[in-house]
Amino acid sequence: MSNQELVVLGQIDDAGACCPGLLTAPLDESQAVELAKVFKALGDPVRLRLLSMIASRAGGEVCVCDLTPAFELSQPTISHHLKLLRQAGLIDCERRGTWVYYWLVPEMTDRLAGILTRPAGEPLPGRTAAAGAAS
Amino acid sequence: MSNQELVVLGQIDDAGACCPGLLTAPLDESQAVELAKVFKALGDPVRLRLLSMIASRAGGEVCVCDLTPAFELSQPTISHHLKLLRQAGLIDCERRGTWVYYWLVPEMTDRLAGILTRPAGEPLPGRTAAAGAAS
Repeated sequence: MSNQELVVLGQIDDAGACCPGLLTAPLDESQAVELAKVFKALGDPVRLRLLSMIASRAGGEVCVCDLTPAFELSQPTISHHLKLLRQAGLIDCERRGTWVYYWLVPEMTDRLAGILTRPAGEPLPGRTAAAGAAS
Repeated sequence: MSNQELVVLGQIDDAGACCPGLLTAPLDESQAVELAKVFKALGDPVRLRLLSMIASRAGGEVCVCDLTPAFELSQPTISHHLKLLRQAGLIDCERRGTWVYYWLVPEMTDRLAGILTRPAGEPLPGRTAAAGAAS
């Protein structure tokens, strides 16, 4: 199975040592475009539920046959959502016989968590420091 | 300024002690709907750039007059994107005289980071544990 999209999305972090740092410096346009694709994939309730079912599965992987019954949606619709999660680099899959098995790509969720985490020891930003600057 | 949307979105985490735990247990439908709104707000390059400009600003807040020149977009378009970030509970704002000032709501990005963080000490999930179960 091709990991082409995963490789492209992996370049989000190649610009820096670890993460583009959403909270520490302004993102440039290309970083924002790549990162937005991943968040957009998470911006749907069905995809979030699929991802959480896959990520929390004991054993680490789930047959698509165990995902579909949880939703009142057709198999092609579920497959489409799974494809979008896979293209975003959040999950991967493998066909074995009749069924396709899915698993989390924890490196991607780790990256997103890192991007959204404030640097250690940084106080809460907000209105305190600059409030006096208003004219 | 009303914090109604913020309060609603705050209920994402009221179900558990901290976070709905995207990676540790299947999300229920209402959790997924609320959480998807926040990720959807992040699923756009312009909004990600706006958020990173606001979050990384020394002093903790930014005048809208300092955000607009970074984009080749009209003021109403920028304001619309800022409104979506605010409705998602990611930023808040206050009008002072002519200008509106924006700041990060770090509690929301902290929650998202927590939701995407694997429990401490948990090994990488994946195909290792269940690979032998394939028939």
